[in-house]
Amino acid sequence: MKKSYLQLLPKNMVNRMNDIVKKLEQFGESVYSQIHKKRSPYMKIPQRGLGNVTYDEKSGMLVLGDKFSKRYYMNVSHTRKFMQTLLVASYCRQLVEEEKHAGIRELYYALKHTVAGSRENTFEDQAESNAIAEDIEVTLDLLREQLNLTADRRGYLYGDVLIKDGEDEFNASRLGRGGWAVPGTVEDIQFPEVSAEYVLVVETAAMADRLIEEKFAQNNGALIVACQGQAPRGVRRLIHRLHFEKKLPVIVFTDGDPYGWYIYSTIKQGSMNLAYLSKRLSVPDSVFVGMTMRDIDQYGLHSVTEKLKSTDKSRIKELRSYEWFKHRKWQKELNLCLKKGVRIEQQALANRSLEFVAKEYLPEKIENKVFLP
Amino acid sequence: MKKSYLQLLPKNMVNRMNDIVKKLEQFGESVYSQIHKKRSPYMKIPQRGLGNVTYDEKSGMLVLGDKFSKRYYMNVSHTRKFMQTLLVASYCRQLVEEEKHAGIRELYYALKHTVAGSRENTFEDQAESNAIAEDIEVTLDLLREQLNLTADRRGYLYGDVLIKDGEDEFNASRLGRGGWAVPGTVEDIQFPEVSAEYVLVVETAAMADRLIEEKFAQNNGALIVACQGQAPRGVRRLIHRLHFEKKLPVIVFTDGDPYGWYIYSTIKQGSMNLAYLSKRLSVPDSVFVGMTMRDIDQYGLHSVTEKLKSTDKSRIKELRSYEWFKHRKWQKELNLCLKKGVRIEQQALANRSLEFVAKEYLPEKIENKVFLP
Repeated sequence: MKKSYLQLLPKNMVNRMNDIVKKLEQFGESVYSQIHKKRSPYMKIPQRGLGNVTYDEKSGMLVLGDKFSKRYYMNVSHTRKFMQTLLVASYCRQLVEEEKHAGIRELYYALKHTVAGSRENTFEDQAESNAIAEDIEVTLDLLREQLNLTADRRGYLYGDVLIKDGEDEFNASRLGRGGWAVPGTVEDIQFPEVSAEYVLVVETAAMADRLIEEKFAQNNGALIVACQGQAPRGVRRLIHRLHFEKKLPVIVFTDGDPYGWYIYSTIKQGSMNLAYLSKRLSVPDSVFVGMTMRDIDQYGLHSVTEKLKSTDKSRIKELRSYEWFKHRKWQKELNLCLKKGVRIEQQALANRSLEFVAKEYLPEKIENKVFLP
Repeated sequence: MKKSYLQLLPKNMVNRMNDIVKKLEQFGESVYSQIHKKRSPYMKIPQRGLGNVTYDEKSGMLVLGDKFSKRYYMNVSHTRKFMQTLLVASYCRQLVEEEKHAGIRELYYALKHTVAGSRENTFEDQAESNAIAEDIEVTLDLLREQLNLTADRRGYLYGDVLIKDGEDEFNASRLGRGGWAVPGTVEDIQFPEVSAEYVLVVETAAMADRLIEEKFAQNNGALIVACQGQAPRGVRRLIHRLHFEKKLPVIVFTDGDPYGWYIYSTIKQGSMNLAYLSKRLSVPDSVFVGMTMRDIDQYGLHSVTEKLKSTDKSRIKELRSYEWFKHRKWQKELNLCLKKGVRIEQQALANRSLEFVAKEYLPEKIENKVFLP
C-alpha cells in the first residue's frame, strides 16, 4: 500500500509545496490576465548568460545580475519558446501536485509531440527543454528540484548521520563499505541526528573507498561525500543543506590540478552556468585541504607527480584570472603549479602507504587547519 | 576500535583467502626454483587477445582459448614486464594478507618508483600496471577483486534483500529513495535473506529512480540494480552472485539501441576484453525485456524515437555478425532496427505517462515473458 509522501512530511514542507504551486499559478495567471486584457502576453525572464554573472565578494558567491529579457507570444522569434515555457511550467505544476518527480529527459519525452494541425514538434531535442527548465527556475526563484525535476545522480555518502526519507530511517555509517547512494533530489530528506563533525567532500570514488576502508569516518568524525568528478546537483544540495541546516564545516579534498580546483570552486562559489543557484547550492565557507603543490615537497611525492599538459597550463592561467581565485594563497598555489609544471593526484599518496592518507596526511592537515581558503 | 574483517568472515571465506595467498606463493616459488636451478626464469601467461577468445555455445559465454605466452626474464623485450609482474603479484599478496584493498590507480602509484641505480621507472603509466593485473588474474585464475584490487565503482541497488558487510546488516529496500551504493568489490558481502524474486538490471539512473518512486520493487518483488551505463565489475559480480548463489533470475532493461544491447550482452555472455572472467561475472540465463523495436508500434512511441546515426548503423551490423546475437529473434530485432532507422530510449516511455513503465509496460512484459533471449 503506497503511503503518500505528503502524510509523512513535516508541515513546513507541505506548506512549501503549496507555495511552489502558488508561484506556478501566479506565473500562469499573469499570462492569462494579459490575454484577458487583449494585450500581447509576455514573460519577464532573468538573463542567465555570462554577461549577467558577477562575483559577489560579500557573500563569496557567483551571482546573477538584474538584467532580464521579455519573451513575447506575438513575436515569431519568441513564440516557440513561449509555448515551451508554458508547457514545462504546467507539467511541473502537475508533478508537484501529484507528488511525482521526473528526470529532465523524461520531461523532454513526456512533452514532446507534434502540435495538432501542424508538422511542428513541441521540442526537437532535450537541450530545448533543459533551457526552458532553467528559465523557469530562475524566473520563479525556485530550484529545479523544488519543481520535482531531477537531474542525473552520482555520488555517495558515508558517515555517522541518521537519514530519514519518507518512512525509511537509517544510519549512513552502517551500510557496509557501500555507503548511501545520493539521489538526484534531496529536498525532502531529513537529518534527525548528526553525529559527524564535518563534511569531507572527496573527488574520486577510489579515495573515498580508501577512507572508508581505513575507518576514517569513524575515527575522525567525518561525513565522507564522494562526488565522483564534478559534484552533481544532488550532492551539491546535500552538502549545502548539511552546512547551513546542520552547521557542519565543509572540507574539500581533490586532486591538485585545474579540474580538482574547479570542483572545489563550484562547491564553494557556485558555477558560472548555474550562478542563479549559488545561494541554494554553494558553500562559501568551505576550505580546501589538498592536494597542494606544497604537499609534493612536504611528503616527498616528486616521483608520483604527472606532467602538466598544455591544456592544463592554459586552464590554470584562466583560473588565476578569476576574481574568486585572487586570494594570495591561491595565486601562490597556481603560480607554483605552473613553475613546477606538474599535477598531483589524491591517489598518489598511496606511494607512501595505503593508510598514510587516513592516518597522517588528512588528520595532520585538518587538525592544524592547513587549508587553502 | 577496528575489528578485523577476518574475525567477521565465515570460515570458508577465510579458507579462500588462504588459498589465494597460496596461489600467489606458488607463482613466486616457480620463479624462485627456476633461478635456483640456474635456468632463465619464465612465466606462462594465457593470451588475452581477441585471437584467443571464442564464444562457447554450450555455456553461452565468451571464453578464453588455450593459447599462452612465455615471459622470460632474460629476454630484453620481456624483462621490464617480468619485473612488473613480480612487483604486482607481491603487492597483491601483501594486500590479501593485510586484508586491505587498493584501487588500481593506487596500485600504480604505490609501486611506481625509480629502480635504484638507474633512471628507469617501474611503471610509466597506469595502462602498464592495469595490464599486469589482468595478466595475474588470468594466470592464477583469480578475480582481480580476490587479489583485493578494486576497480572504479558506479551503480546502486534497491530492493528487498538483507545485506551483510562486516558488522553491518541492512535491508536495501529501506534506504529511502537513494538505495545502496555498490562498492567496487563485493566478494565479502553476504545475503542472509533475499525476499526479492528477481534482479532487474536497469541501464539509466533516471529509469531506476522512476521505478523506485513508483514502488516497483515492492509491488513486483524486483531487486533493482542501476548500472548507470556499461555495468562496472562490482555490479556484474553482484548480479552474478545473486543469480548463482541465490537463484534469482536476471532481467535486463536498457535503451533499444546498440549501446543498450551491448550492455545486455556483456552481462549475459561477458565481454571480449575480459573473456577470461566470464565464468565469474556473466549470467548466460539473463533475458532482455526492452526496449525493443516492437515496443514502438505496440505502445505508440513513434513520436519519441530518435534517428539512428551512421555509427549506430555500423555498430548494429557488427552486433548482427556476432555468434551470440545469431538467435533468430535477435537477428529479427537488429534488422527491424535498421529498417526503421530509429532507436528508442527507456525514458521515452514517459511519453505515455510517468507511471506507465511501472504499472503497465514492465509488469505485462515480465508476466507474459515477452523477452528477447
